[in-house]
Amino acid sequence: MENPVFTLDLQVRDYECDLQGIVNNAVYQNYLEHARHEYIRSLGLSFSQMHLEGIDPVVYRIEMDFLRSLTSTDAFTVALKVRKEGRLKYIFEQEILHKSSGAAVLQAQVFTVFTKNGRPVPPPQAIASVLEGIVPPAGVQG
Amino acid sequence: MENPVFTLDLQVRDYECDLQGIVNNAVYQNYLEHARHEYIRSLGLSFSQMHLEGIDPVVYRIEMDFLRSLTSTDAFTVALKVRKEGRLKYIFEQEILHKSSGAAVLQAQVFTVFTKNGRPVPPPQAIASVLEGIVPPAGVQG
Amino acid sequence: MENPVFTLDLQVRDYECDLQGIVNNAVYQNYLEHARHEYIRSLGLSFSQMHLEGIDPVVYRIEMDFLRSLTSTDAFTVALKVRKEGRLKYIFEQEILHKSSGAAVLQAQVFTVFTKNGRPVPPPQAIASVLEGIVPPAGVQG
Amino acid sequence: MENPVFTLDLQVRDYECDLQGIVNNAVYQNYLEHARHEYIRSLGLSFSQMHLEGIDPVVYRIEMDFLRSLTSTDAFTVALKVRKEGRLKYIFEQEILHKSSGAAVLQAQVFTVFTKNGRPVPPPQAIASVLEGIVPPAGVQG
Repeated sequence: MENPVFTLDLQVRDYECDLQGIVNNAVYQNYLEHARHEYIRSLGLSFSQMHLEGIDPVVYRIEMDFLRSLTSTDAFTVALKVRKEGRLKYIFEQEILHKSSGAAVLQAQVFTVFTKNGRPVPPPQAIASVLEGIVPPAGVQG
Repeated sequence: MENPVFTLDLQVRDYECDLQGIVNNAVYQNYLEHARHEYIRSLGLSFSQMHLEGIDPVVYRIEMDFLRSLTSTDAFTVALKVRKEGRLKYIFEQEILHKSSGAAVLQAQVFTVFTKNGRPVPPPQAIASVLEGIVPPAGVQG
Repeated sequence: MENPVFTLDLQVRDYECDLQGIVNNAVYQNYLEHARHEYIRSLGLSFSQMHLEGIDPVVYRIEMDFLRSLTSTDAFTVALKVRKEGRLKYIFEQEILHKSSGAAVLQAQVFTVFTKNGRPVPPPQAIASVLEGIVPPAGVQG
Repeated sequence: MENPVFTLDLQVRDYECDLQGIVNNAVYQNYLEHARHEYIRSLGLSFSQMHLEGIDPVVYRIEMDFLRSLTSTDAFTVALKVRKEGRLKYIFEQEILHKSSGAAVLQAQVFTVFTKNGRPVPPPQAIASVLEGIVPPAGVQG
């Protein structure tokens, strides 16, 4: 992925591996979600705080391509960027890469909307501004 | 365990096994919690409903003895009984048994109190009555 | 989904819900995987046994559309059918439905190959026969 | 805990919180296990490598006291020391502490043996030496 707006370094924990000896597929969704939440947090808002205020970011579609496996103790990076579609849809492009080799492990498109009382709404302005690239994000890494 | 007041039959799912090829230790806590919640539900109350009303059953201590392993697709039973200690403490005795052999897989003592605003309180009367054996539980199995 | 070749009835466990009060997205992958493994098991083969013999079914792509949420204690059904693409690819179409209303909760396409020493291979003949519809599956439900 | 031989800094991920809005009890076992494995790794051996060589560290008893809750994005430390009992038993004393306040969140005793073909055996010499304090551990932190 070129020009990610956020990256997060993590390491595989043994309990995340299944009886094939590799990270279970569902765990990659955990990694992707955690990176998105950390990204949102780097913009100055917390996911749990938004929930308390009645605003929930909701994933309505995920596409994941599994290219390689991660296994016990592997270090890896989750990279992320985001684009807007229409008035309310934000699509996160996410990639997981082996830390040592840089090889792509997984590529994902995560389609999200913000909701209030179950209906799509524009995100809080602080988030909207950054997601839409009006204001350069403060928490950029990598 | 003699005379459980509740039993629940479950089956190991492959994603619950770790790279040793057996159910990861932490997953047994999931099984034990699920059995307690199903027991409480069999008494006519739901855990999530209690949470919405501000009452949260809280585990303050767990002791678990791991006697055997469960592995892929094993069928097993979680058995449960409960005793009161003092005015507010409820201790769940729980056992996990291989369905086919009846062999004990795990024995646990789970120490709980009900809390409201972070302070111990007596449980809802419907639960208290049953937990204290005043009224025979409606949902007894096995 | 019309004419599923396999269905599995499950129920949400409280520990599968996250701080939004609904089933965490990653958990749906657990449900989908468990249903596929139970389907394969209904054909007379176990996933862990195949692994010991060096054959691992591998998911190389997943597409999931999240239509509704499941929450605490919800009963639901995972329905499944499978189609072949090319010589080695098997695509599972999977759907999760609310048990009570029949409403669709999630629709997924899960792209798989069988691998041996990291290379795609045809699946064991017993599985190939059924997956390709040559022999009607023994374990059909629903 | 005084004089831990190993400490590990971690942070709560949102998917580890349940519908009570706090880290689910079972997840603490994940944290404790991960810290033990990282400790063993700091001694120069990997858990998965030992498994491949037929040696599996096995937990046969856990005692956990839950003193406080961790919630979304909390930073915390897992501290650890180990004592020997008899010829084959190693007991890990583990503590989880809030990073900011230093307040104790959880205290645990984790009773382990190393096994080969299902029977208790002494651990690999490199581990035994360190666990028994003959050689000061190379990976000491904190």
